[in-house]
Amino acid sequence: MISVVILGNGNVATHLYSAFSKALNINVTQINSRKLSTIPSSDVTIIAVSDDAIRQVSQEIGDRKGLIMHTSGAVDINAIAGKRKGVFYPLQSFTKNAIINFNEIPFCLETSHKDDFNLLENVAKSIGKKIYQIDSEQRKKLHVAAVFVNNFSNHMYTIANDICEKNDVPFEILYPLIEETAKKAQSISPKDAQTGPAKRNDVQTIQNHLEQLNLQQQKIYQLLTKSIQNSIE
Amino acid sequence: MISVVILGNGNVATHLYSAFSKALNINVTQINSRKLSTIPSSDVTIIAVSDDAIRQVSQEIGDRKGLIMHTSGAVDINAIAGKRKGVFYPLQSFTKNAIINFNEIPFCLETSHKDDFNLLENVAKSIGKKIYQIDSEQRKKLHVAAVFVNNFSNHMYTIANDICEKNDVPFEILYPLIEETAKKAQSISPKDAQTGPAKRNDVQTIQNHLEQLNLQQQKIYQLLTKSIQNSIE
Repeated sequence: MISVVILGNGNVATHLYSAFSKALNINVTQINSRKLSTIPSSDVTIIAVSDDAIRQVSQEIGDRKGLIMHTSGAVDINAIAGKRKGVFYPLQSFTKNAIINFNEIPFCLETSHKDDFNLLENVAKSIGKKIYQIDSEQRKKLHVAAVFVNNFSNHMYTIANDICEKNDVPFEILYPLIEETAKKAQSISPKDAQTGPAKRNDVQTIQNHLEQLNLQQQKIYQLLTKSIQNSIE
Repeated sequence: MISVVILGNGNVATHLYSAFSKALNINVTQINSRKLSTIPSSDVTIIAVSDDAIRQVSQEIGDRKGLIMHTSGAVDINAIAGKRKGVFYPLQSFTKNAIINFNEIPFCLETSHKDDFNLLENVAKSIGKKIYQIDSEQRKKLHVAAVFVNNFSNHMYTIANDICEKNDVPFEILYPLIEETAKKAQSISPKDAQTGPAKRNDVQTIQNHLEQLNLQQQKIYQLLTKSIQNSIE
């Protein structure tokens, strides 16, 4: 039996608490990060608070016994004040009330002490399946890569949605293409999946497209067209 | 029974021929667009050639009987030389040898004569389910919107892939996030689905991310961050 204390009340804390509650080999307690006076001792402490608050919460609880870790993709392992540090980063965007299938979510794990990795891996395996050992430097890169596949892809959808709305075209016509694009990047590499006027250097079509767009959209279209062409050279 | 002649040997022509062959109410013939001397008469002629070749092929076959249409998202209906013009645009990227489920693919239809729309709709319904009436102006906008959701989203994946490869991080860690981002844009609007440091105006994280990127990637990161912030103002 591994005892786990989760500090925090946000989406990540709540989803993790709910998952650990169902794990047979985990005994979990969730504690509001504003009420840190009485924390039961535990094998593992998970600081599941916002990035900015990690250092402070870590200092408040001091060097308590056991492995102490945060859940952030962007924060270094050394933000933890304790001796036995760890990172337990579930790479997914957590929406409140959404059902989370932890079996599908990759866990990126790191420990400051080699001996602790096995413990952390057992904790992760109690609720998930996709386990990766990722150090703080790699995690930083992964975090910015995630911005591209999530935030920036989504912004491409937003622009498409804006264009459709403005011209009374139902955005849903594009759903199968969104779906197929996401699937293809997984079945073949995104570089091999690249198609379109930028890749073909179809100057006439590029010109026609630019004429349909507003200034901001044009800037994005031009920069991404150039970047696609650079990436295939 | 509707008789259909498909002119062309590319991916679209071949996939359409294969689908129409299985339709009970369609009698289909496929003809190489370089051998246009003997084309049987038909109710419908589909010019399924590259965008640049549509005008020329259309002129070569002249004003033959029946409805004459092309399959392009980017070309105006008036590129067709005949009197009864149409557009039959299946909005999907067609890969050779890939299995195409036409039931999932939106057909964007247009006819120059109102009376012909019903015929075209019957042709589309013989192989598909998602039928939309889209005129040439709307189709132009849809075509550029498709570049954003397909070509540009895919380029976001390519950049993420490059970042991962350069830092020995398996790109597959990002697959579930790619998947979830695509799904969420369909279940809620992409504008509502937007998250991340740009949306939160998290200046410190944006700065940290920029430091991880090369010059080209930085330009894209900055422009898209600005565009996300403009779109939520």
